[in-house]
Amino acid sequence: MTPQQYGVGARFTLSVYDSDYVRIILGALSEADSSGLSVETNDISTFVTGSEHRILEFITDVIAAAARSGAHLSAAILLSRGCPGELQCALPEGVPALGADPIALPDTGVRARAHWSLYPLLDPLVDADAGAGSGAGSGTTRDHMTPIYLAIEQAKSAGVYSGSDHYATRLDGDLAAVLRTAANAWIGVGETVQHVVTHLTVSINSPSPNRD
Amino acid sequence: MTPQQYGVGARFTLSVYDSDYVRIILGALSEADSSGLSVETNDISTFVTGSEHRILEFITDVIAAAARSGAHLSAAILLSRGCPGELQCALPEGVPALGADPIALPDTGVRARAHWSLYPLLDPLVDADAGAGSGAGSGTTRDHMTPIYLAIEQAKSAGVYSGSDHYATRLDGDLAAVLRTAANAWIGVGETVQHVVTHLTVSINSPSPNRD
Repeated sequence: MTPQQYGVGARFTLSVYDSDYVRIILGALSEADSSGLSVETNDISTFVTGSEHRILEFITDVIAAAARSGAHLSAAILLSRGCPGELQCALPEGVPALGADPIALPDTGVRARAHWSLYPLLDPLVDADAGAGSGAGSGTTRDHMTPIYLAIEQAKSAGVYSGSDHYATRLDGDLAAVLRTAANAWIGVGETVQHVVTHLTVSINSPSPNRD
Repeated sequence: MTPQQYGVGARFTLSVYDSDYVRIILGALSEADSSGLSVETNDISTFVTGSEHRILEFITDVIAAAARSGAHLSAAILLSRGCPGELQCALPEGVPALGADPIALPDTGVRARAHWSLYPLLDPLVDADAGAGSGAGSGTTRDHMTPIYLAIEQAKSAGVYSGSDHYATRLDGDLAAVLRTAANAWIGVGETVQHVVTHLTVSINSPSPNRD
């Protein structure tokens, strides 16, 4: 199954707080290498599908290019795996989860701060043990918060964890390190959970001081 | 249990594509009525907690006020219920889901287009039937896509459904109608699912034509 068939993709909105935003956004999109990807921009956001690695390279390149304008910007990013299609998932729930290699991204020199949330969309029916009627014990390692806590520990190891706000983990570091951390947690949960989504709101060149 | 104790709240990032963004954003935040709410703005986003109705009134007021500047803007909005706290949920998983009344919001006269995603974070353990070992049949009505499809049907009835893009439903209508539709789906799923999150990316005053 190709990444596209499995629904591996992203949707992101790049917001530039500058009256010259059209030039900055279109320039950043046109400069980034989209080989191996399908990219569609509409009035709300840009959709990208392809391999995890190429998707993240593309998004990193677009945001870094816009950031080098010096303008304050934010990016709302959604990464999804395991639920292709539009109105409905084209894959039925409960197909085997499909893993992928962790991604590597070279540092960009652009500092980013982000709020990050990870959503493993578990279904009772995909738990083979529960299906066999073995009862409550089978669910103990599949509660939806466990992979989230594990991902937060990995962000701490990666050196980009910067605290936890309500509903989101705060990341701070090179743009590539921030996106790498979120993407590898998303890929990691995807080893065992079919439908996994993660959202980031990234802020760059903000004039507001960090809360710390 | 108060809405705050149950973790009812929002986090939103208002992005104004205009070099005068500081004045527009701070003006919109200061004009909105925050009574009954706790509001904290940091360098990435604004956190709001209180009742569902007051939270949505506040967010609608802030975005509508910024939109009246005429500037192009986008807002990344996260609504969450059932998982209070920061690093960890302060409520254990599997406490009873707590309902709330649907909200009403008067129209604003501001047209908004949005990408909307709804995430019911179900856990196998909260399914009492599965816990009793009754097997696969117990999960058939609790797959995570069913409430999402139902919410899309409700958006169609509300007249704001505008198609489905990958990973998101497209809404188009008065800003209040768009936020009301997303919020009432989030509240509705919350009747039976403890931890429910919904994300919207709202675009207003965009110079790009709608894809239709």
